[in-house]
Amino acid sequence: MLVREIGEFGVIERLNRMVVGRGEGNEAVRAFPLLVDTGDDTAVWQTGEGRELFTTDTMVEGVHFTRKTTPWRELGWKAIASNISDVASMGGLPTYALITLGLPPETMVSHIEEMYRGMLEIGAEYGMGVVGGDIVRSPVFFVTTALTGVAQRPPLLRSTARPGDAVGVSGWLGSSAGGLRLMLNSEIAEGPDATGEAADFLRNAHRRPAPAVQAGQVLSQKGIETAMDVSDGLVDDLGKLCAASGVAARINASAVPTHPLLRHQFPDECLSLALGGGEDYVLLFTGPPGVVGPLIPQLGEGSAVIGTVVSPEELGGAGRVAVLDDTGRELSLSGGGWDHFEQTGAH
Amino acid sequence: MLVREIGEFGVIERLNRMVVGRGEGNEAVRAFPLLVDTGDDTAVWQTGEGRELFTTDTMVEGVHFTRKTTPWRELGWKAIASNISDVASMGGLPTYALITLGLPPETMVSHIEEMYRGMLEIGAEYGMGVVGGDIVRSPVFFVTTALTGVAQRPPLLRSTARPGDAVGVSGWLGSSAGGLRLMLNSEIAEGPDATGEAADFLRNAHRRPAPAVQAGQVLSQKGIETAMDVSDGLVDDLGKLCAASGVAARINASAVPTHPLLRHQFPDECLSLALGGGEDYVLLFTGPPGVVGPLIPQLGEGSAVIGTVVSPEELGGAGRVAVLDDTGRELSLSGGGWDHFEQTGAH
Repeated sequence: MLVREIGEFGVIERLNRMVVGRGEGNEAVRAFPLLVDTGDDTAVWQTGEGRELFTTDTMVEGVHFTRKTTPWRELGWKAIASNISDVASMGGLPTYALITLGLPPETMVSHIEEMYRGMLEIGAEYGMGVVGGDIVRSPVFFVTTALTGVAQRPPLLRSTARPGDAVGVSGWLGSSAGGLRLMLNSEIAEGPDATGEAADFLRNAHRRPAPAVQAGQVLSQKGIETAMDVSDGLVDDLGKLCAASGVAARINASAVPTHPLLRHQFPDECLSLALGGGEDYVLLFTGPPGVVGPLIPQLGEGSAVIGTVVSPEELGGAGRVAVLDDTGRELSLSGGGWDHFEQTGAH
Repeated sequence: MLVREIGEFGVIERLNRMVVGRGEGNEAVRAFPLLVDTGDDTAVWQTGEGRELFTTDTMVEGVHFTRKTTPWRELGWKAIASNISDVASMGGLPTYALITLGLPPETMVSHIEEMYRGMLEIGAEYGMGVVGGDIVRSPVFFVTTALTGVAQRPPLLRSTARPGDAVGVSGWLGSSAGGLRLMLNSEIAEGPDATGEAADFLRNAHRRPAPAVQAGQVLSQKGIETAMDVSDGLVDDLGKLCAASGVAARINASAVPTHPLLRHQFPDECLSLALGGGEDYVLLFTGPPGVVGPLIPQLGEGSAVIGTVVSPEELGGAGRVAVLDDTGRELSLSGGGWDHFEQTGAH
C-alpha cells in the first residue's frame, strides 16, 4: 500500500493506532503524566505547576505555498502562526519555538533572513521566542516549526462536544481563502495583482493571519471545554471535532460570518469560501447555549453562533455536518461550491 | 549570496545573530526565563520546579541516510536517538517527542510503520513518548523529531571549558563511522555485506546508537559543567566546544578509545574513524582533572581522559584542536586520514 492510496490522514490514523495503543512499546514517561496525545491540536502534559503544550507544523514549497502567493517575510509569519493557532485552540499561551529549515543549496541567503524577520515579528507580537533549530540540505525547501506553550487551566479539547451545545466561531471566515483565490486568479490570467481596499485586506488575511490567542484565553476562562482552530476549512474541521466527540452538527449558512470586504470582492462565492476555505485560524468551539451566547461579544470581530451540535443518529453518523439555508433546506458541496441539492427532474 | 556559498553553518550563524541579538523583535517570553538559546545542544528555560529542554533534528533521504545503509526500523531509532543524545549532553532526561514526516506519495505505508516501530522501541528503552506530529506531502522523504526534556540540575554547556580542564569522553569512538564505511564498501564493490562479529558490531553501532543519558546524569551529579555530544566527529565537535568556550585543546591520539572490534576490522584506519567519524553519540566533556579522573570508571565502557584544555594563545586561536602522538608530534588531517605532517623533503 502506498501513501497516495490512503493519503496523509490515512497514514496518520494508522500511526496513531500504533502510538496510542502503546502495544508496541511507547511508554508513558516517568515524571509528567500525559493529558492529551495524538488526535488534538497539541499534545498536553501536566507539570508541577501547570500544563505544557507541544505542537508542530510544516510548510513544503510547491505543496503548502508558492513564492508568488507568499513572500518570504510572510512565509516566516505563517510558519509560526499555524502553530500559535494550535496552542491558542487549547486555551494556551505560546512560549518557545525551534525552526527546522530544509534548504536547497541554491537558496538565496537573503530570502531566509527575510523569512526570519517575519518569524521575529510574529514572535514579538505574541510574546514567544525563537530559541534555535536545525538547518539541513534538502532538494526541496521546507520549514518546520515546533512550538511549546503553557496553559493555566485544563486544555480545550475536540472530544468534549455534546448534543445541544451551541457551535461558535471567534471571527470572520473565508478571508484567507479569498486572498489566495485573488492571487491565483491574477496568476492564471498573468495579469497584475488586484488592487483596492478589499484586495489588500484579503491578501493580508492570507499572508498574515492572526492566531486567536486572546479568544482562546477568554473561552478557557469562561468555562468552555471544546475547541479547535479552523485551519483546513470550517465544515472539514467541524467534522473532525464532531468525529472526535462522537456527535454531529448543523450549521446555519446565513449565520456564518464573512467580512464585508470578502462579500464585496466575491459576492457569489463568499459562502463557499467561508465554509470550505482554510487557514482562517479563528477558533471553532461548542458549549451550552447559555454560556456561548453571552461570550460572543467578548471575542473578536465577526465572532458568532453558527449552529448546533446534535446526536449522531439525527444526521446519520458521528462526524456528519449539515449546512442549512434559512428555510432549513440542506446545502451540498458540488464542483467546489456549496449549493442546494440539484433537482435532477430530467430523469 | 547562495546557501551553498556559505554552507548550513554559515546560514545558522547569520540567523543566530538575528535571533540572539533580539534587535529585530524576538522577545523573551513572559513566564519562563530562557537559560540557554541557540548555540548549544538544546534550548533550556527555567520552569517553576526545574528546567525544560527543547531540541530538534532532521534526516533527509539521500542527504543523511540511504535505504541501503539504514533500514526503516533503524531509521526510526536514529531519528529519535540523535535528539535524545542532545538532551543527554545537557544532563537531561527525554520526555516527549513530535514526529514530522515529509512523504512522497509513492512511499510504502508498511515502511513508515516499520520506522515507527523503531521509534517506539527507542521510546520504551529511554522512557520517552511519541505524542503526535504532522505528516505532509513532499517530493523528498524527510523525518524531523522535536523533543522536550527535563533537567533537575543546571544544564551542561559548551561554553564553560577552562584552560587546565581535562577532556573526557563517555565511550568508544569511531564505531558508527566504521559500520558506515563497511556498508559503503560493500555497496561500491556490489558485494554482499561483510559478516562476522566485528561487522555485526559496527553495523549495529551505526544503526542503533545508544544515547548516553546515564552518562549525562552522572556528569551532572558529579559537578561537571561542560559537555556536548559527539555527533559530527570528535575533532570537529571538540573544536565547536572550544570555540564556544574561547579556549583550545590538545588530544593524545593514543588515549582516544576505540573498540577492539573496530581495531580488528580497520587496523589502519581506526584512529581516523575515531577522530573524524560522526554519530557516535558519546558525550565529550571537560572539568578539573581531579574531578574528571575519578569519574571515568562510573561512565560507560570505553570512557577515557583523552586530552587537556589550553589557552587559545597556546595553539594559535580559540577553537583550535591539536592531535598529538606519543612523542608529542602533531598529527594532521590529509586525504581524509590523520597522519604526521608530510615531510616534503623532495622540494
